[in-house]
Amino acid sequence: MFAISGATIGVRRRLDLFGVLVLSFAASTAGGVARDLLIGAVPPVALIDWRYLAASAAAGLITFYRFQLVDRLEQPVLISDAAGLSLFAVTGALKALSFGLGPVSCILLGMLTGIGGGMLRDILVARIPMVLRAELYAIAALVGAGVTVIGVHLELPRVPVIVAGALSCFTLRFMAIRYGWRLPIAEHRETETPHE
Amino acid sequence: MFAISGATIGVRRRLDLFGVLVLSFAASTAGGVARDLLIGAVPPVALIDWRYLAASAAAGLITFYRFQLVDRLEQPVLISDAAGLSLFAVTGALKALSFGLGPVSCILLGMLTGIGGGMLRDILVARIPMVLRAELYAIAALVGAGVTVIGVHLELPRVPVIVAGALSCFTLRFMAIRYGWRLPIAEHRETETPHE
Amino acid sequence: MFAISGATIGVRRRLDLFGVLVLSFAASTAGGVARDLLIGAVPPVALIDWRYLAASAAAGLITFYRFQLVDRLEQPVLISDAAGLSLFAVTGALKALSFGLGPVSCILLGMLTGIGGGMLRDILVARIPMVLRAELYAIAALVGAGVTVIGVHLELPRVPVIVAGALSCFTLRFMAIRYGWRLPIAEHRETETPHE
Repeated sequence: MFAISGATIGVRRRLDLFGVLVLSFAASTAGGVARDLLIGAVPPVALIDWRYLAASAAAGLITFYRFQLVDRLEQPVLISDAAGLSLFAVTGALKALSFGLGPVSCILLGMLTGIGGGMLRDILVARIPMVLRAELYAIAALVGAGVTVIGVHLELPRVPVIVAGALSCFTLRFMAIRYGWRLPIAEHRETETPHE
Repeated sequence: MFAISGATIGVRRRLDLFGVLVLSFAASTAGGVARDLLIGAVPPVALIDWRYLAASAAAGLITFYRFQLVDRLEQPVLISDAAGLSLFAVTGALKALSFGLGPVSCILLGMLTGIGGGMLRDILVARIPMVLRAELYAIAALVGAGVTVIGVHLELPRVPVIVAGALSCFTLRFMAIRYGWRLPIAEHRETETPHE
Repeated sequence: MFAISGATIGVRRRLDLFGVLVLSFAASTAGGVARDLLIGAVPPVALIDWRYLAASAAAGLITFYRFQLVDRLEQPVLISDAAGLSLFAVTGALKALSFGLGPVSCILLGMLTGIGGGMLRDILVARIPMVLRAELYAIAALVGAGVTVIGVHLELPRVPVIVAGALSCFTLRFMAIRYGWRLPIAEHRETETPHE
């Protein structure tokens, strides 16, 4: 899911075909790889299981050779990105839980799994990560992971907890995309500096 | 300590509230997390102990909602940053020593613990890390870690060694801030290229 | 080998002496460190063995104090960089193989060992990694690692396999430098946007 956004930005920045594929792969696996490194689950599953590579390569190739099409599908791509974010945040939190970490760590790791790919993608193209600025991006991942971790700690049944976690993340992000919900930005009157 | 500098830059770059908090947390923990990953101490202590998160969130919130105030306190913030650098460099070196690494590795890891947070902070806002350019920043961390590691290897008593390590780092950085001490920059006459 | 390119860029970006040394060290060890983290070989060999540090410091110092000279040797530096890429890609793949990973993982890790240093170097100076854009850079590392891994899996004798892996990477990169071979860039008619 993140592979497409990685590839899109790669094409925009005029990377060559292989650079686009590397960026797709990095964007789709970085969050999970970071989580696996931090909990000591090495080598990370994304490197061992070739299906991660195949899926990201497919998305990268499609984006590269059908760029006009993908570019026009901006809304669907944003929605599928939100679905990916929800999925990653919840599975990231669950994996951290299964390694016996405390609730705060699991929520942080769930968030990191969700946003890590987008952060690496933006670092690689030398721009400030969108996930730190966009409408409710990182916080949607945090909420999704939080709902999951709290549900598991209350020993509620698994499936509803997972669905609730994913839906809470997806809904928050979806509303932000659709209605422009956003968090406050600090007042920082740069232009007034000369007056001081 | 680093959390404030992270949050300050986040506000300047117009991140939203949550982005500012993420940047505070990243700036205050990245050095220690990198060190823990490299010596195999996973999961890193900064992720397990909720007090790291609480302290960085507090600093981030204060900076966000009292930005005019924090911005005016530039000198005190720089001094507290230097104190944080000293603390991190010394404790980073000690932790590496306690894992039985050789002296060169321990000095490098102490330096990394000190400067890692500032490096990640600057990478995330897409600018060249200040720690690689500022007056005696990385080298102060190196000296602090070096004094600590050498003292421990000579089996001198612990407390004076730690104090000496921290003071040497702090003094160097303080003098650099106050008197503009700096290392040479290579002569690189870009403007003369046409003449060649 | 990569240390020189790291130091050259550091000087160009007006880092101070110590920043240049840090960048040299980062550029020459990041690929191997990332590989070691991902396969769980901590602490990474580049941190334990002081010779890595010594070699990168030497290259950094020479570049810093003889910048005019190094700058003029652009072609030889590019060739030695290609040799380093070949060496790192092959040894990276072999190390991953010796840890019992599957072939796809080993090829990816070989490529990462080759290109990781250049990626970190460019991230640290806030520009889009050259390895994602340059003529056949990442793909040369991939091919070199691929030849090595396939040869080892076919149980061919070690030495010829290693030589073939390194030569395939070096040749590809050399031809790209000399004749400007490159991969396609997606058609992305930015300038036509107003017409749509």
